[in-house]
Amino acid sequence: MNHESSPRSTSSPLWRRAVAEFLGTGLLVSIVVGSGIAAQRLSPGDVGLQLLENSLATALGLAVLILIFQPVSGAHFNPVVTLADRLLGTRHRPAEITAYLVAQIAGGIGGAVLANLMFDTPTTIATTDRLSAGHLLGEVVATAGLVLLIFALARTGRSVLVAPAVGAYIGAAYWFTSSTSFANPAVTVGRVFTDTFAGIAPTAAVWFVAAQLLGVAVGAGLVLLLFPNRKAHQ
Amino acid sequence: MNHESSPRSTSSPLWRRAVAEFLGTGLLVSIVVGSGIAAQRLSPGDVGLQLLENSLATALGLAVLILIFQPVSGAHFNPVVTLADRLLGTRHRPAEITAYLVAQIAGGIGGAVLANLMFDTPTTIATTDRLSAGHLLGEVVATAGLVLLIFALARTGRSVLVAPAVGAYIGAAYWFTSSTSFANPAVTVGRVFTDTFAGIAPTAAVWFVAAQLLGVAVGAGLVLLLFPNRKAHQ
Amino acid sequence: MNHESSPRSTSSPLWRRAVAEFLGTGLLVSIVVGSGIAAQRLSPGDVGLQLLENSLATALGLAVLILIFQPVSGAHFNPVVTLADRLLGTRHRPAEITAYLVAQIAGGIGGAVLANLMFDTPTTIATTDRLSAGHLLGEVVATAGLVLLIFALARTGRSVLVAPAVGAYIGAAYWFTSSTSFANPAVTVGRVFTDTFAGIAPTAAVWFVAAQLLGVAVGAGLVLLLFPNRKAHQ
Amino acid sequence: MNHESSPRSTSSPLWRRAVAEFLGTGLLVSIVVGSGIAAQRLSPGDVGLQLLENSLATALGLAVLILIFQPVSGAHFNPVVTLADRLLGTRHRPAEITAYLVAQIAGGIGGAVLANLMFDTPTTIATTDRLSAGHLLGEVVATAGLVLLIFALARTGRSVLVAPAVGAYIGAAYWFTSSTSFANPAVTVGRVFTDTFAGIAPTAAVWFVAAQLLGVAVGAGLVLLLFPNRKAHQ
Repeated sequence: MNHESSPRSTSSPLWRRAVAEFLGTGLLVSIVVGSGIAAQRLSPGDVGLQLLENSLATALGLAVLILIFQPVSGAHFNPVVTLADRLLGTRHRPAEITAYLVAQIAGGIGGAVLANLMFDTPTTIATTDRLSAGHLLGEVVATAGLVLLIFALARTGRSVLVAPAVGAYIGAAYWFTSSTSFANPAVTVGRVFTDTFAGIAPTAAVWFVAAQLLGVAVGAGLVLLLFPNRKAHQ
Repeated sequence: MNHESSPRSTSSPLWRRAVAEFLGTGLLVSIVVGSGIAAQRLSPGDVGLQLLENSLATALGLAVLILIFQPVSGAHFNPVVTLADRLLGTRHRPAEITAYLVAQIAGGIGGAVLANLMFDTPTTIATTDRLSAGHLLGEVVATAGLVLLIFALARTGRSVLVAPAVGAYIGAAYWFTSSTSFANPAVTVGRVFTDTFAGIAPTAAVWFVAAQLLGVAVGAGLVLLLFPNRKAHQ
Repeated sequence: MNHESSPRSTSSPLWRRAVAEFLGTGLLVSIVVGSGIAAQRLSPGDVGLQLLENSLATALGLAVLILIFQPVSGAHFNPVVTLADRLLGTRHRPAEITAYLVAQIAGGIGGAVLANLMFDTPTTIATTDRLSAGHLLGEVVATAGLVLLIFALARTGRSVLVAPAVGAYIGAAYWFTSSTSFANPAVTVGRVFTDTFAGIAPTAAVWFVAAQLLGVAVGAGLVLLLFPNRKAHQ
Repeated sequence: MNHESSPRSTSSPLWRRAVAEFLGTGLLVSIVVGSGIAAQRLSPGDVGLQLLENSLATALGLAVLILIFQPVSGAHFNPVVTLADRLLGTRHRPAEITAYLVAQIAGGIGGAVLANLMFDTPTTIATTDRLSAGHLLGEVVATAGLVLLIFALARTGRSVLVAPAVGAYIGAAYWFTSSTSFANPAVTVGRVFTDTFAGIAPTAAVWFVAAQLLGVAVGAGLVLLLFPNRKAHQ
């Protein structure tokens, strides 16, 4: 999540940036899926407690992953952020976007497989149906808020705060959106490949991704409304 | 929560600042109400665990909202803060104050409706009676502490810390005040419009707002006692 | 917790610093006692969950209180810190020390009374006996660690980190010391005046304070061993 | 965790640095073991809640320990970090490495004994068998991630963030790795000496250490791949 006003490492070749996106998205999904499995096994009596454990691990882990990979690739880990960067920034060439998206989706799937391996769980297609109107509205809100947060920070010269801020945002959004805030198509695809706490059935995943794309449009509109200048508030 | 010594965006027109206050207050109430509904549904067996989930989501989410909107409107989200800024600062014109208050209250109601929609819950008037002498004392203490915190930071040149500090403060105040620390008339009004975990019946809401106004007076008095100069401690 | 290398407000008159110590210590005890009562009432089935709620509220609230009062009085809130400042610093005059200690102890008692009032609980002497060899060792360790932390930061020019660091330290020390880490004679005295979750019987309190004084000696010795120069590591 | 680009205290004599490593590793193990015992006793009904309490106390406490000791010794507390520093840095002489490793392992054992004493628990050899293929993979992942995090920060001039980042990382890794992320041979050895929540049987400990050494190799490889220059991204 590294934008025009952040410490971007323009010197990194594209292959290294793609590796960073692959590893970052992969480890993010490992954190989401792995901590979900651990929570489900260790706190069988209370789903809320499971979600508390899952959300705190995700918030902390996501902040750390952004810290690690931000200087290399910008730490998008999320096609929605790469797409918003294309809409609101000016620098991504088509080859870059393609490389980012492929790396993110491959990473998302790989991360689910890694979590399944660590927890001795088979890699199978998820059966958890999460589809409802409320959940789709939740995904729109969650994604719009994520885009607004990242570009509010970028356009006011505070990208150094993206790591803790995005971690905290996702930690809260697990709770205040009814969908538990996937807000990320690569993570959504990855979570299809584990039939555990964090899993999502393919049909619901398609709808979730559609809602996330709508959320990008809403979020980008809010950025243009509130932060019309790229560095106006610095 | 942007005061004389903070990075205020004086260049933002009033309509944009009002939009920021509307969105920020609305999303704050969505976080409070939405995470409350999620906690109530997922952890039915322990009210304390529900409040833990609700308070952590609120602390993280509120900090993020302040980060987003502080450069635009100062991120008040709270008539009490706008009023204290009028008492302790020097710059709010009547039109500004009116615009802020209207945006905050409309946002508070809209945020409750949004949370109800995400969680497929009807928007009805709350029936939770929270009225007791201890709770009203709790609201006085919670509001006075909030005002003292914000202006202690502003008057010592540390407004950049308002986001994490106010998040942490509210996270603690959910627990140490008996009222779970509403400390915000716009949020109090918004919470009337959901008959869920975070709801409050209208009669109690009126008393809560009165206690919050008393809390502003106490808090402003403490600011004048401890931080008499606007930038004395920088 | 404001020492030779921190942004000390030497311009504050002693009466204002004493008021800050009174309010800060009082609110700290209100947080400890109040969140303990809330936790006990709302999570009756699991003492660990109660302590989790109590410890998180204290960690967040203590960090905020230090942020508020550090520019005024140094935010000691603790006779042990004032005493260590006398041993390791050079500036406290006898009148200052006396004023700090009186304000801290009065604040500690007042904070317990305030919490009792907010939660409609009578102010009575605590009956919880916490006396054991392991607990006293816990108090020595907890207090030594607190002194080492504060002066390690002060002697390396990082007093700006005292607020989050001391909050985090106490949050951890609730758990890793068997005594739940009182580590503060003024807070210990205050907690005598509530017969609730955070209370401590007077006899145990006397032994706890003795162990805390031993802890100051250990902590000060470690500071001299590891950070012999007042600003050597800046 | 103090490397080429961090505020290293080269003026500290080796004995003082070894004392810092001994104390830091010891207190880290006291935190891990002590909070584990407290969690086990206070939350007997839910192992997940125990791990939540244990992991939050460790995350907060570890961050604080790094803050204290980083200016003296670099706050490795971990043979794996010292070894990676030898591979990726250029400054450790054999005597330094030996002193660090001895201090860390002695500290790890001492810390377990201290926790046992505080909680009136005998010091006996642990019987908890944690050996499985998934757990060993978990240790490889956990250790590789830790090394990548520390050197990503060091090689981009952000070692000041090591304290909160490593604390957050371990807090997440307790959950997303199946092994609960020991990731530290000295801590692993220390945890052999307590037959409580955090204990590990000697046979499993040997395998865990082997997996951790493999993790260092993986982590160092990732550092060289992603951050080839020592300060390229500053």
